Amino acid sequence: MKQTLKIIKIGGKLIENEAFLNSFLEDFVQMKGPKILVHGGGNKATEVAGKLGFETKMIDGRRITDKNSMEVITMVYGGLLNKSIVAKLQSKKQNAIGLCGADGNVLISKLREVKDIDYGFVGDIDHVNTEFIDSLLMQQIVPVFSAISCTEDGILLNTNGDSVASEIAIAMSKFYETQLYFCLEKKGVLTDISDETSLISELNSENYNNLVASKVITDGMLPKLHNCFEAIKRGVSKVILGDASLLKEDSIHTKILK
Amino acid sequence: MKQTLKIIKIGGKLIENEAFLNSFLEDFVQMKGPKILVHGGGNKATEVAGKLGFETKMIDGRRITDKNSMEVITMVYGGLLNKSIVAKLQSKKQNAIGLCGADGNVLISKLREVKDIDYGFVGDIDHVNTEFIDSLLMQQIVPVFSAISCTEDGILLNTNGDSVASEIAIAMSKFYETQLYFCLEKKGVLTDISDETSLISELNSENYNNLVASKVITDGMLPKLHNCFEAIKRGVSKVILGDASLLKEDSIHTKILK
Repeated sequence: MKQTLKIIKIGGKLIENEAFLNSFLEDFVQMKGPKILVHGGGNKATEVAGKLGFETKMIDGRRITDKNSMEVITMVYGGLLNKSIVAKLQSKKQNAIGLCGADGNVLISKLREVKDIDYGFVGDIDHVNTEFIDSLLMQQIVPVFSAISCTEDGILLNTNGDSVASEIAIAMSKFYETQLYFCLEKKGVLTDISDETSLISELNSENYNNLVASKVITDGMLPKLHNCFEAIKRGVSKVILGDASLLKEDSIHTKILK
Repeated sequence: MKQTLKIIKIGGKLIENEAFLNSFLEDFVQMKGPKILVHGGGNKATEVAGKLGFETKMIDGRRITDKNSMEVITMVYGGLLNKSIVAKLQSKKQNAIGLCGADGNVLISKLREVKDIDYGFVGDIDHVNTEFIDSLLMQQIVPVFSAISCTEDGILLNTNGDSVASEIAIAMSKFYETQLYFCLEKKGVLTDISDETSLISELNSENYNNLVASKVITDGMLPKLHNCFEAIKRGVSKVILGDASLLKEDSIHTKILK
C-alpha cells in the first residue's frame, strides 16, 4: 500500500494575514506524514509593483506578466513570501525548503502560447521532477512551493498556484496515495457566495457541469474547479476545498468526486 | 583521500552586470567536481528600498538592517538575484538550487549583539547543516546561497556574504578538501588600489598584519581578509582572491597562506 502524501494549496490573500498564517502553519505542522505546501502571492506583488512604478495590467481578472512584473513576482513570491513561510515553519521545528520551479529543475514549464491575449511571462507546467521532491520528503523536509515555474531555457514564469498544486499532486501519485487540499476564504463551493450555509458538501463532474451551465459557479472558481477535476481524474485520491479549518479532522468542506 | 569541493563567492556588484554574470556562470559550469556558489546583493537592494520609500541607513559603510530593509533583502537577495542565477545555471544544463539560511535549516545564526551600534537584523553564523549540503552535492545539485541566515526562532538575518562562504567552506572541510575562491572586481589584494600591477601574489598572516599596521590594507578588504585567514586556519586547504578570470586555470590572483 502506498503512503499518503498531502498537498496543501493556500491562497495569497490568506497568507497576507499574519495571525491567520501563524494559526494555519500551526495546524499544518501538526499534520502527520509527508506533506507539501503551495502558496499564492496575493496583493503584495501588486502593491510592490505599484510602489516601484510598474503598472499592473489585468485582463478579465488575470495578470499580464511583463518583464517588470515577473521581476516583482520573483522578489515577492519567490523571495519574501516563500522564505518567510519557510522561516516560520523552522521556528515551529518543521524542517522545510522554499522552492521555485528552477530549483532542482522541479517545475518545468512552457511559455503559454499567444492566442487572443498575450499574457507575457506565464507558463503551463510540462514536467514535475518527482524524484527530487521525493528525495526531500524522504529527508522529512517539507517542500514549500511559490507559484513560479521555469522553462528548459531558464526563463522564470508566473504560474497559476492551483495548477502548481494540482500538477504536483498528479505527478506524485506514482509514489504516493495523494490528497489535495485547497484552502480558501470560504468553507468550500457555495451555491450562493454570500451564504456559507449554501455549501455543497460533495461535487461530482456531472453536478459541476450543470452548475456551470446554470451560472451558479463562475469567475475564479472555474479554473480552480477545473484543476480539482483534473486531479481527481488523473490519479489523486482525494480532493477537498475548504477554509482554514480544512486541516482539522472535523472540518466542513467540499469534497470532489469523479 | 577526500574529494575536492570548490566554494565560490561572487560580489553583488559583479552579478548586476548581465554580460559579466553570463560569462562568469559559463566558467563556473565548466568547473569539474562538486561546487557551491555564494552571491552578494550589491546595489539592487538599496535601489529597490529607495523606490519603496525605505531609507537605507549606513554606518561606517555597513548597512543598518531594520525590518523594512530585511524585507527588501529577502525579496532581492533571496528572491530576484538568487532565483535568476539558479534559472541561468539550469539554462546551461547545470542543476542547481537556491537557498537562504532557513531552507533545510542550512545556515543557523545568532542575532549580532548590540555593542556600540545596533545593526538590526544582522546575524553571525553559528551552525552549517553540512549533511543537507552534502545530500545536494551527492545528487549533483549545486547549492546557490544568498547571504541570508536564520535564527533557531525563525528570524531571517542579513549576513555578510564573505562570512557565509568562509563558514560553509570551513564546515564542509570535514567531508571534503575545500577550496575557497573570492571573485572581486580587482585581480586580488593590491598594495596600490589604483594599480593592478601592485598585486600581492601570496599573502601570509605576518605580511597581512604588517600591511594592516602600515594602513596599506584598509576598509572593505579588512573583513574580507579576516574571513580568508579564518578559513585557511580552520581547515580550508586553499583560499584565493581574484577577478573574473579566477575560475580559469591560468588566472593571476592572490593566494592566502597560513
